[in-house]
Amino acid sequence: MPEEKSFHMTPDEFRRHGHAVVDWIADYHSRIESFPVLSQVEPGQIRASLPANPPAKGEPFDTLIKDVETLILPGVTHWQSPNFFAYFPGNASGPGILGDLLSSGLGVQGMLWSTSPACTELETHVLDWLVSMLGLPEKFLSSQTGGGVIQDTASSAALCALLAGRERATQYSSNKKGCDGRLVAYASTQTHSSLEKAAMIAGIGTQNLRLIEVDKNFAMRPDALARQIDADKLAGLTPCFVCATVGTTSSNAMDPVKAIAEICREHNLWLHVDAAMSGTAALCPEFRHLQNGVELADSYNFNPHKWMFTNFDCNCFWVADRKALIQTLSILPEYLRNQATESGAVIDYRDWHIQLGRRFRSLKLWFVIRHYGVEGLQHHVRQHVRLTQQFAEWVRNDTRFELAAPVPLNLVCFRHKGGDEANQTIMDRLNRSGDLFLTHTKLNGKLTLRLCVGQTHTQERHVERAWERIKEEAEKL
Amino acid sequence: MPEEKSFHMTPDEFRRHGHAVVDWIADYHSRIESFPVLSQVEPGQIRASLPANPPAKGEPFDTLIKDVETLILPGVTHWQSPNFFAYFPGNASGPGILGDLLSSGLGVQGMLWSTSPACTELETHVLDWLVSMLGLPEKFLSSQTGGGVIQDTASSAALCALLAGRERATQYSSNKKGCDGRLVAYASTQTHSSLEKAAMIAGIGTQNLRLIEVDKNFAMRPDALARQIDADKLAGLTPCFVCATVGTTSSNAMDPVKAIAEICREHNLWLHVDAAMSGTAALCPEFRHLQNGVELADSYNFNPHKWMFTNFDCNCFWVADRKALIQTLSILPEYLRNQATESGAVIDYRDWHIQLGRRFRSLKLWFVIRHYGVEGLQHHVRQHVRLTQQFAEWVRNDTRFELAAPVPLNLVCFRHKGGDEANQTIMDRLNRSGDLFLTHTKLNGKLTLRLCVGQTHTQERHVERAWERIKEEAEKL
Repeated sequence: MPEEKSFHMTPDEFRRHGHAVVDWIADYHSRIESFPVLSQVEPGQIRASLPANPPAKGEPFDTLIKDVETLILPGVTHWQSPNFFAYFPGNASGPGILGDLLSSGLGVQGMLWSTSPACTELETHVLDWLVSMLGLPEKFLSSQTGGGVIQDTASSAALCALLAGRERATQYSSNKKGCDGRLVAYASTQTHSSLEKAAMIAGIGTQNLRLIEVDKNFAMRPDALARQIDADKLAGLTPCFVCATVGTTSSNAMDPVKAIAEICREHNLWLHVDAAMSGTAALCPEFRHLQNGVELADSYNFNPHKWMFTNFDCNCFWVADRKALIQTLSILPEYLRNQATESGAVIDYRDWHIQLGRRFRSLKLWFVIRHYGVEGLQHHVRQHVRLTQQFAEWVRNDTRFELAAPVPLNLVCFRHKGGDEANQTIMDRLNRSGDLFLTHTKLNGKLTLRLCVGQTHTQERHVERAWERIKEEAEKL
Repeated sequence: MPEEKSFHMTPDEFRRHGHAVVDWIADYHSRIESFPVLSQVEPGQIRASLPANPPAKGEPFDTLIKDVETLILPGVTHWQSPNFFAYFPGNASGPGILGDLLSSGLGVQGMLWSTSPACTELETHVLDWLVSMLGLPEKFLSSQTGGGVIQDTASSAALCALLAGRERATQYSSNKKGCDGRLVAYASTQTHSSLEKAAMIAGIGTQNLRLIEVDKNFAMRPDALARQIDADKLAGLTPCFVCATVGTTSSNAMDPVKAIAEICREHNLWLHVDAAMSGTAALCPEFRHLQNGVELADSYNFNPHKWMFTNFDCNCFWVADRKALIQTLSILPEYLRNQATESGAVIDYRDWHIQLGRRFRSLKLWFVIRHYGVEGLQHHVRQHVRLTQQFAEWVRNDTRFELAAPVPLNLVCFRHKGGDEANQTIMDRLNRSGDLFLTHTKLNGKLTLRLCVGQTHTQERHVERAWERIKEEAEKL
């Protein structure tokens, strides 16, 4: 039978072009320090260089790679640069990228066990591994009452946790009847904004999300939490959910999980622990005390796509009681029915998150863990923390600067004593120079600079250079 | 300065291992027809082959690839096989996979324009291209009042649309006050289950999601919709949202968008058009009549990751009024503030969906469009539709079988006239044989087989062979 006309790339063309893309990426990482970290383009500049209309006919693949180089790269902020100290990192690594490439090449859907059993089973397996790697409670194991799942982001994980808390508190009736405006959730004033978004999405409403005050270290005050819960109950409201953060985005503050957990137990509230960034530190036993009390949590999550060398997206989310999560999110239309699901012997991950479709994300996580081994991951986390502590020490010893918050791990919040304008000027000049990229927050109403060490290839020399450049800009004030 | 100890993969190692992974994928696609399409493993079989504990020390990369071959592949259901006719496809292509690889290699976050301007601007640009490629209304253009965004899945897009409808109907107060149990949404009995899930998540409740009856072709009855809205209003409820489907999952039924849209206009309800699968057909002008009335929609989405050769995840979602969407989903903590956002001159996509973090997904979509050109995409869509119509004709002409629903595009719903058990037997035997993979639905209470032609490499010979195998199993009954 003659082959039909086809516009598809043949396996041999894929091989050739694929090698070229791999080489481009290897070269990109080799020369990444030559680019300004923060893209210097103006709004609209990238679009202006693109043709107004889509191509009627196909174009050669080489042209595409060339256009990435000339048209796209100027508009890229280099998150993989070792001079990237902004936000929290979104780090990546060779094994992570190649594991993800295999996932794209296999192109399977993991919505049900039966739609690709390995996609489900490898994920469950690797998330069980991580329970022991991170010293998390055994109840999170799939062999116990719980289990783990890969979500896209900590935002989605927080939403799922909030929904599970909402349902448990209403005897699983809100799903059916809708929310009644009486449900209340709790977080601290420093909790990530995704909790506010989750309260909006889940029909709870931001006015029913209580932002509990924090202590001088920006950690949630358990006494204030307890008082607020009592007041809400007295007012006839229905508390359902608390989020404790291990490492807030603004200043890496550590909420006292154990004290919060005890209050949650007393009132039967769902406790979600958000360790999106700092959870990775628990790979090292010496840092696990920061999340003491996690053994009492109903759910927990951290992002290997922030600090564990696994390219985005990869959020690991565990629950202590998988039945509560599944009861919250399960739906089963006829066209998804199958024998394996009916048997109850398998996990169908579409009941563990918002989406139905899902890619084979555990491959990249498996590759990262096996490439580095526990030893390699620990080494790099310790290295990042050491470099951060060194930077904090330099700040502490420079009379022009001050630390603005404790430095438990790999984020330094600091400021020039010259006030907001001085700090804004320092930051803007540094970022415009392209030498490094820093971002800011506000603590106690004051503009504060944030320097986070977590990019895969950041070494001592990069942190030293950052401090030199900061001091240079301070001199110029 | 001496280099510090590192467990990272060097650029040269990445090059070598990357070539090996590319070659593995090229080989996989070359030999994909040699595998049983549906994985034949038992529950737990894949996990049993994996070591119980994570590796303490790193392992050579070659071992990882070998383990994918020997431990993972037996548990893979081959969604990229040309003999995959199940569900709706999740097709992929060389340019899509390599565009995604570049996205992994760049490793940028596109949550804000400023965190990587090219990530935002290319996405806006390509979604504007698609408006003209698909004949969608100009109001969806970013240069008009609307705009497009890439979401992960149609489930998430539907949730965002429902939330926007919820907020618009309550003068943007539900976000703050929570839901009140009086909001009502509408879909047909054949609408995708993600709408039910969205109603649960959004605090509206499934009892406030009205599933409107369908006509003999499984399309929503506008008269029934209008009656239900009137009844709900009379009962003092607040209708807020309607989902019309262009190509339902069960049978590819086409809801009459125009008639539904007119009802929505009359009552000021948010109209979301879900064309997750069939939207791709609009690349060809001769199929656009199936979504007549889309010019009246408030939002629209389709999945290039289903039928447009762009590997998962890639859902394209447009709104006519971007302000309504942004007002629904926007939050702005201090640590994300920046000059570009404050200026109002840029799009910050984190206000267009549930998540905060987002990868550079437009690269793969751009690559697919440029590799194939409009001409190439149209060619393959027409080819799939032609093969499907041919299959439907074979069914029609075989007295043992019957068509169970109209065949507007690339899905055939059919059944053996011998009843549910006969059809279950045929399906189970085919799937167990590994020769092809089919799934089922129920239409009018009867078990119905579904055959969908949309996998990238499906050609005439694969559809012919499928029909031969179906007839063989029918003979054996």
